[in-house]
Amino acid sequence: MTEPVTIALDAMGGDHGPDVVVPAAIQTLRDYPDSSLILVGDEAVLRRHLAEGRVEESDRLRVHHASQTVRMDESPSQALRLKKDSSMRVCINLVKDDIADACVSAGNTGALMATARYVLKTLPGIDRPAIITTIPCIGGYTRMLDLGANVDCSAEHLFQFAVMGSVLVEALDGAERPRVGLLNIGEEEIKGNDQVKQAARILAASDLNYCGYVEGDDIYKGTVDVVVCDGFVGNVALKTSEGVASIVSHYMREEFRRNLLTRLAGVIAMPVLKRFRQRIDPRQYNGASLLGLRGIVLKSHGGADVVAFRHAIETAILEAAKGVPAMIDQRLDQMFSERHEQ
Amino acid sequence: MTEPVTIALDAMGGDHGPDVVVPAAIQTLRDYPDSSLILVGDEAVLRRHLAEGRVEESDRLRVHHASQTVRMDESPSQALRLKKDSSMRVCINLVKDDIADACVSAGNTGALMATARYVLKTLPGIDRPAIITTIPCIGGYTRMLDLGANVDCSAEHLFQFAVMGSVLVEALDGAERPRVGLLNIGEEEIKGNDQVKQAARILAASDLNYCGYVEGDDIYKGTVDVVVCDGFVGNVALKTSEGVASIVSHYMREEFRRNLLTRLAGVIAMPVLKRFRQRIDPRQYNGASLLGLRGIVLKSHGGADVVAFRHAIETAILEAAKGVPAMIDQRLDQMFSERHEQ
Repeated sequence: MTEPVTIALDAMGGDHGPDVVVPAAIQTLRDYPDSSLILVGDEAVLRRHLAEGRVEESDRLRVHHASQTVRMDESPSQALRLKKDSSMRVCINLVKDDIADACVSAGNTGALMATARYVLKTLPGIDRPAIITTIPCIGGYTRMLDLGANVDCSAEHLFQFAVMGSVLVEALDGAERPRVGLLNIGEEEIKGNDQVKQAARILAASDLNYCGYVEGDDIYKGTVDVVVCDGFVGNVALKTSEGVASIVSHYMREEFRRNLLTRLAGVIAMPVLKRFRQRIDPRQYNGASLLGLRGIVLKSHGGADVVAFRHAIETAILEAAKGVPAMIDQRLDQMFSERHEQ
Repeated sequence: MTEPVTIALDAMGGDHGPDVVVPAAIQTLRDYPDSSLILVGDEAVLRRHLAEGRVEESDRLRVHHASQTVRMDESPSQALRLKKDSSMRVCINLVKDDIADACVSAGNTGALMATARYVLKTLPGIDRPAIITTIPCIGGYTRMLDLGANVDCSAEHLFQFAVMGSVLVEALDGAERPRVGLLNIGEEEIKGNDQVKQAARILAASDLNYCGYVEGDDIYKGTVDVVVCDGFVGNVALKTSEGVASIVSHYMREEFRRNLLTRLAGVIAMPVLKRFRQRIDPRQYNGASLLGLRGIVLKSHGGADVVAFRHAIETAILEAAKGVPAMIDQRLDQMFSERHEQ
């Protein structure tokens, strides 16, 4: 059981638009009987999709018209200026107007971030929103931010990320005092760069559960619950991980396809390989949160399929039920008053 | 056949010291009949190792005494100040004095970099040396620099890395005009940070084969031959890759050990899994080059075993036979005169 919440879905976004979003919405409604979804996009197209799925519009599954779509390669400034009735923007408007408690889009990240920031604004004390996602690690999962919304982060930005990441983990996992690590390198004489060193000092003085520096390989060891880093670094780390996962799959496929004997071995090992693949399936981690806004915005992978998009909707439902932005706001308030008292 | 070269080996460095370095040296000599090796370290210990391996000292395998050892956790400044007769420093001295053509150490990276820079000095036009290594990718391998020697790199530094990386690939792979990519992210409105954008302009105007931006996942796609990045970013990318590889192995082992049936499947799939593991075996890429110095210095992984350490020695032999520092020097000279003419 979760709180009754309403989620707006950008039904035209991503590589597959309504082909993925509509079936994902229909499936999610079955599992979350208290939730309502709003499909935002071209109403004729969306109603046709619903008819094809033999699903009727209802209070729990509404269609909300939007006449435009933001293209995947459209620049954020262009999207902001020229696409005021895009499915993406209308979704965010619904959150702003308290008609929806959260929204999910598989549309282009830059445009989504720029529009969300413009329409919703950031929370007091937050300079720029950050992108956070879940990453599998030995023994469970961890979360990392920022993943590309901010480059050249100051120490203060990194501290804000740590606060927001901590609150999200508390809210979604019910963890008390999540362990926070600062991503750094161990090679330099005096480790890392100035921003990281300064952020370490601020974090150590805060009442967050700061556990010190972590290195790239620690992300997957589950050393901490929240990994904090500059958006440039986080984006490279995430994309590099995807690259390694692809090459591993590629090599494995090649080896099992080498000849008749290896193919046979592949058939026998199939159930094991399938379970293995399920465990590293990135779809179960789809749905990155844009944190620091006065509202909940989830970014789905552009190429997400129905399974993956459902995960993003589910994360939105959880964040909405917990009221993550209000939690962050409260926490920031508390931290800043503590810092002023010192 | 390669040129006759002499390589100095820090026989006391790394986690295993002479237990790894001496057998690796003996094996390498068999495969490279024109090369000579100098084992640097505690002569009593080294002679005992040679006696145990029933190998006699010769012109091709000499022992050179050094009374000190740099610890793995020793600070670079401490190593520089207090360990003037360390096996690491004596190796580098042998390169400086033209007694060895290159040296290899599995000792701590910070101390190695600081000592190499202090003793050998950088090439004219190079502000700071960079660390470059080989990375497997679909269809072969690529090379990436810097991996942690430099944080907060300027555009000019990134350009210098591109030149050095290009020359190394030309020298080692015989590739003409290696493709150079600049590591960036695709999320920001105006992609990346200022240093990267400025470096892109310098690279585009140079006569290097600059192919534009690459993202984290491109590293493993083999899109380019040289990936250029800031040392902080490169170090995180490399360590993150190691982390992903470990968690993949960990999950796979767990799945094949789940029960009797999966263990049986594991036995049947063993030859395939073994070939697969060989392909992603990091030992075959061991040996990172410190580029930009007036001499060749190779850094082996601290935990390298005999197979891995041999690869590092082989890379040193190849670089020495080609005379990589002189090639870089020549190329820089040519590029700077071209830039001045413009």
